[in-house]
Amino acid sequence: MVTTTAPPEVSDPRSRLVSSAAELIHAGSYRAVGVKAICEKAGVKKGSFYYFFPSKEALVLDALDSIWEEFERDGLRASFDPGLAPRQRIEAMFDHAYQTHSRIRRRTGHVLGCPFGNLAAEASTLNEPIRDRVLMAFAEWTALIEETIEEALRAGELDPALSAEATAWSLLGTLQGALLLSKAANDTGCIRVIGRETVEALWGGAVA
Amino acid sequence: MVTTTAPPEVSDPRSRLVSSAAELIHAGSYRAVGVKAICEKAGVKKGSFYYFFPSKEALVLDALDSIWEEFERDGLRASFDPGLAPRQRIEAMFDHAYQTHSRIRRRTGHVLGCPFGNLAAEASTLNEPIRDRVLMAFAEWTALIEETIEEALRAGELDPALSAEATAWSLLGTLQGALLLSKAANDTGCIRVIGRETVEALWGGAVA
Repeated sequence: MVTTTAPPEVSDPRSRLVSSAAELIHAGSYRAVGVKAICEKAGVKKGSFYYFFPSKEALVLDALDSIWEEFERDGLRASFDPGLAPRQRIEAMFDHAYQTHSRIRRRTGHVLGCPFGNLAAEASTLNEPIRDRVLMAFAEWTALIEETIEEALRAGELDPALSAEATAWSLLGTLQGALLLSKAANDTGCIRVIGRETVEALWGGAVA
Repeated sequence: MVTTTAPPEVSDPRSRLVSSAAELIHAGSYRAVGVKAICEKAGVKKGSFYYFFPSKEALVLDALDSIWEEFERDGLRASFDPGLAPRQRIEAMFDHAYQTHSRIRRRTGHVLGCPFGNLAAEASTLNEPIRDRVLMAFAEWTALIEETIEEALRAGELDPALSAEATAWSLLGTLQGALLLSKAANDTGCIRVIGRETVEALWGGAVA
């Protein structure tokens, strides 16, 4: 769902390092991408890297902040528009993921998955600060879903036995899992299919 | 859900390389673990490695086969016991994941996640044969879930608007996502919570 942007066109080298790291790691993996490759893509001399960042990990933490800000602005704000009905917001969340990752698939030939989910899987046991940053993003994201589910419960749209918090984590888990399966399949179809089935299972018979 | 086993005690060096690779990569990542470390753990001279395997990738494909066989035997067979009602099978699948990963968490201090899910996230864009092997495992797993959902649909337990295939992918996605979130949180609680909410959302009001 979260995604990285096109090549950096900003002029300051620090920002170019951040966006280059975001893009290269999203397309590959944390371990597969070295400081040298990031510097080359950013057009920054490797010798200057440590003037800007003490380590690759520090750069990646900055890159995660920057990806998150963009995702909040361009993805979450539209999906969780209070003008939409709760069900439409959850549908919009899955649809945004489907559209975004289909676009990336067309451009790069690969489904790259969620930058946060990817790092959770690859680096959680190896880099505690990265795990923390990913968890923070997941918690913020879940809070938006939880508000939506609370609204739907108050409106009597959902089984009152459901917990808003648990359902919110479950929905984020389902989206993250859908992105993971779509990455394994290199095909975004399952994001759409899983999104529809999930909404159907929650809201029941009503046609979208 | 899938998990790797204790240190190798088998005597042949090829099997020791396979189980050492499975264990080290599960605890770290594909890229973070080199042939040298695998050989050291297996007690095999690095010079002999290429007598057994042409590459680390080839070894990892063998390790995935071996993890999958064990998971089929010890995890899937019990969860998808035809003697259980469909709902109980899905509950057993989530419960097996919760129990297994809680045990690993107690032993290692970390939630390590699903070895297949981890590799899907880390290596899908970098190693096509690994991506293929992971996808094959996901497809076999989904087939078992799909049979279960078909049975529940035939018994009239579920909303007839649901597609068995889509629901099966959705359930595997949800479990994979739950494992990913639990790895990010280093806490298995969300596997249990998400499992319960998912079963509740599908089967509705009835108390488990």
